[in-house]
Amino acid sequence: MGGVQAVSAVEPPGIRISEIFGPTIQGEGVLIGQPTVFVRTGGCDYRCAWCDSLHAVDSRFRDDWRPMSIEQIWAQVRVLSGGEPLMVSLSGGNPAIQPLGDLIARGHQDGYRFALETQGSMARDWFSMLDVLVLSPKPPSSRMSVDRAQFEACLDAAQGKPLTVLKLVVFGDADYDFARDVAARYPHLPTYLQPGNHTPPSADAVDGPVDIDGVMQRMEWLVDKVTQDRWFQARVLPQLHVLLWGNKRGV
Amino acid sequence: MGGVQAVSAVEPPGIRISEIFGPTIQGEGVLIGQPTVFVRTGGCDYRCAWCDSLHAVDSRFRDDWRPMSIEQIWAQVRVLSGGEPLMVSLSGGNPAIQPLGDLIARGHQDGYRFALETQGSMARDWFSMLDVLVLSPKPPSSRMSVDRAQFEACLDAAQGKPLTVLKLVVFGDADYDFARDVAARYPHLPTYLQPGNHTPPSADAVDGPVDIDGVMQRMEWLVDKVTQDRWFQARVLPQLHVLLWGNKRGV
Repeated sequence: MGGVQAVSAVEPPGIRISEIFGPTIQGEGVLIGQPTVFVRTGGCDYRCAWCDSLHAVDSRFRDDWRPMSIEQIWAQVRVLSGGEPLMVSLSGGNPAIQPLGDLIARGHQDGYRFALETQGSMARDWFSMLDVLVLSPKPPSSRMSVDRAQFEACLDAAQGKPLTVLKLVVFGDADYDFARDVAARYPHLPTYLQPGNHTPPSADAVDGPVDIDGVMQRMEWLVDKVTQDRWFQARVLPQLHVLLWGNKRGV
Repeated sequence: MGGVQAVSAVEPPGIRISEIFGPTIQGEGVLIGQPTVFVRTGGCDYRCAWCDSLHAVDSRFRDDWRPMSIEQIWAQVRVLSGGEPLMVSLSGGNPAIQPLGDLIARGHQDGYRFALETQGSMARDWFSMLDVLVLSPKPPSSRMSVDRAQFEACLDAAQGKPLTVLKLVVFGDADYDFARDVAARYPHLPTYLQPGNHTPPSADAVDGPVDIDGVMQRMEWLVDKVTQDRWFQARVLPQLHVLLWGNKRGV
């Protein structure tokens, strides 16, 4: 207890930020192609086997995560966007770890919109303030397991207010079956399937190599699966930023 | 006059179909990634310099366009989709040339949805029956010119009922300026920008070569333009089917 308090005492207040970058286009899912500034928080309660954002997840990089106040973060978003309202993507790591409600309120004052992407392992009451909530439960290939009660709690917290969608990463048949199962459980949520990047960057790399041909083959495989199974409600989209810029960070 | 009547008399009734294929994913614009069956009609009132569907446009291919009845078309869509409702894309050529209202009504009976893509040069009262209307006025590089009165008439015909969006192809600065101008004129319409394919297939080719690197460079250029100009309402998307399958027809 004393130790926990001591750690609390030395940790500066604010939101732990891994990086803020943009504007660039959103590369994935429901907002694909949308000009966006990304606010990536540091820290995650998961350790997905194929995580493509380890620099925002692995506690080895904790020293790179800068604690920032709402006003510091907001000033940076405003500079990057030239004060012109746009979509802000709150990502991570798991951004639900951080207290982001006040940031969303601040941005809404200026006419910005907010999308959050999370695995759905931590529900926050400020989810209802979001414009877009992307729930991305992790499939078997991640070697993580879904806490269904928490996932339900995330939906409850959203109160149906943001546009809420499922984004499901698929590396193979087991992931595909998982995706079908999740989508069947939540038929009212638009479903986006995404082939996995089997060549994610290492945590230290800022521009690691990526196997584009392999990614495209997985994309074709996924399109074939969906059309053969007549799963016509699902949308299948690659990671556009990976096709455009490989594993380069900050684009 | 006699000649025209003679031609009319020998032309069989029905809708002129260039090809029906799918299901595959929609590669462009607002429905990108959506499993879709494509019904491509034959014939066009435009001859865009960079047309990528000449086999459905050039009257040299008129003999390949099969006149089909509503029931024939619908039977084929049902076979391709296994009777499972999905999105049907009506494309061309300019599908607005054909009388498609009864086809849409027939499909709606079975729970299918319909998207139409047209340059907006011909208004039809059945536009209001559509689920999605994609208006794609052609930019200067096409060497076509927009008939603003007809374009307005298309919007009027839609009566605000389908989800109506702009899709603007951009090959260079003049096209970009055109796109900005059109989007500014219709701020209530979601705008999708698409880098042009400068290596379109020839009319005879079923799988012509495509310069993917060049397409990607144009995509990056367009993302840079949009973000530098802070045109944050526009979404920028490549032709996903071209990235996946090149100029191959029927996917």
